[in-house]
Amino acid sequence: MKSPLRLGLAGLGTVGAEVARQIIEHQDMLAVQAGRPIVIAAVSARDPKKNRNVDLSAAAWVEDPVQLAMRPGIDAVVELMGGAKGAAYHLAQSTLSTGKPLITANKGMLAAHWNELFDMSARYSAPIMFEASVCGGIPVIKVLREGLSGNRITRIEGILNGTCNYILSTMDATGRSFADVLAEAQAKGYAEADPTLDVDGWDAAHKLTILGKLAFDASVTTEQIAVTGIRSITTADLKGAREDGMTIRLVARAEKAPHGLNLRVSPMHLPLEHPLAAVTGAMNAVTIKAEPVDVCTLIGPGAGAGPTASAVLADIIDIARKI
Amino acid sequence: MKSPLRLGLAGLGTVGAEVARQIIEHQDMLAVQAGRPIVIAAVSARDPKKNRNVDLSAAAWVEDPVQLAMRPGIDAVVELMGGAKGAAYHLAQSTLSTGKPLITANKGMLAAHWNELFDMSARYSAPIMFEASVCGGIPVIKVLREGLSGNRITRIEGILNGTCNYILSTMDATGRSFADVLAEAQAKGYAEADPTLDVDGWDAAHKLTILGKLAFDASVTTEQIAVTGIRSITTADLKGAREDGMTIRLVARAEKAPHGLNLRVSPMHLPLEHPLAAVTGAMNAVTIKAEPVDVCTLIGPGAGAGPTASAVLADIIDIARKI
Repeated sequence: MKSPLRLGLAGLGTVGAEVARQIIEHQDMLAVQAGRPIVIAAVSARDPKKNRNVDLSAAAWVEDPVQLAMRPGIDAVVELMGGAKGAAYHLAQSTLSTGKPLITANKGMLAAHWNELFDMSARYSAPIMFEASVCGGIPVIKVLREGLSGNRITRIEGILNGTCNYILSTMDATGRSFADVLAEAQAKGYAEADPTLDVDGWDAAHKLTILGKLAFDASVTTEQIAVTGIRSITTADLKGAREDGMTIRLVARAEKAPHGLNLRVSPMHLPLEHPLAAVTGAMNAVTIKAEPVDVCTLIGPGAGAGPTASAVLADIIDIARKI
Repeated sequence: MKSPLRLGLAGLGTVGAEVARQIIEHQDMLAVQAGRPIVIAAVSARDPKKNRNVDLSAAAWVEDPVQLAMRPGIDAVVELMGGAKGAAYHLAQSTLSTGKPLITANKGMLAAHWNELFDMSARYSAPIMFEASVCGGIPVIKVLREGLSGNRITRIEGILNGTCNYILSTMDATGRSFADVLAEAQAKGYAEADPTLDVDGWDAAHKLTILGKLAFDASVTTEQIAVTGIRSITTADLKGAREDGMTIRLVARAEKAPHGLNLRVSPMHLPLEHPLAAVTGAMNAVTIKAEPVDVCTLIGPGAGAGPTASAVLADIIDIARKI
């Protein structure tokens, strides 16, 4: 068996702690999958004393996460701190500039610094892996980059925000109002105290930006997307749709047009037999239309510690197999 | 740019000709995806004179396909002849034993010779790529091998046979009999003149064997699967199911049990809100339950020249990127 892949892990929030737990508790199975042991050699997080239900005593604690990449013996860096700027961004830069692979779930950072980070990735031959940044557990980045790599994509659309989908599908099923269901989602922790990013469509727009860059053109930006959220959807709208054999979902769509791309996030009426109409609760879904494959749909959990850890682990194993 | 990947292509039926057409007509786009040109250097097929709507004049014609792998300058072999034994099997052996990657859509050959071929693959460090062997355009092999590689899979189930799904969903939608819909499917070319392999569940069982080997254990064999087909399903069954809010689908399922695996292919009642219930016509779908990702579903075209070519092209590009 090859030598271990030694990781520097930055961020031990819900996702970071789950990734650490999976790596430590399932090390034998992961070593078989990766063809070599996967080891957390160093970690960095705000509070070293917090109980995270995972034994990290074998890892070195590093005060400044930006230093992780420069430590001797670190083969790759896993960035799970979040935040588009600050420490996460500086860690990404230091990782790539030392020629080490960067594994990140940080959608905001990628959206804000895409060109710069991928230029560095190319210059220093340091891969950026970001399966966890879009649609949680659904391996849509791998499917776009590899599984459908021989296709010309003409359209990509999906339900990219679990909070909006939970609200709309609950309103549809129960007849309760937007405000009522949102308040419940906030109480249960499915929605943020400030729900703007979710319910006004911006989270879906950020994810569509990344999918659009991969599917069509790296120059796609969030600013090009026409964004409408779901605040104005009423139970009467959903009832009317249902009478016509339809439901309403917040759909993010990027589509090839005669002159460039049509990019939008908006509530859409979908026939009940449409694959996206069957996606309820906090699930995510992505439908890809392409030649020669025609249409493929992926459905799965779009958020949460377990699904996001699944995506991070797949990226780590990919790196372990390749470098 | 790196040197071209030079392919030997065996078999120019519907799928083989479509793969050749895609490689020749979209060579610039494929070269960008692969990081190097992809070239069909040699082909072998029964009738060199048949019009296949593709210009293969730049490729060498080889009488005996088994010789393709041994030709100087061939980097990888694409086997699209079909047949579990005979030329396809001998070509697979000669390809792997010369240390060259084998790309195949040949489910029957893999099912019959799995251990031997993968032993050769390991001994000669020659990868076997077989995305096109199961579920056509759905990249389920890549998702199992890579996209969900950090998971412990507990269940994999799906609609793996498009002919059965077309028959059942058409019976359900129109109230027509099994015999009537089967006759129509045969007339349209969706079903074989001898439909046994499809309607008795054996095609789904062969695919489940491959998925089960990947998801659980290479020792899974078709003989271990309890197989029931759809011949006995009546319109009254479907009507009764619908009255209970259900539909009937031929479901292939492999599930971890306290002692080994439960493996079966059989018609199942599914609630209409079940993700597999929404899969109509000749589509395929696979649902994977695993820890930590929870549940992911992939839906797409399970057969046809375009979808199968998509899978073959993805494997070719993977090889071009890696070797």
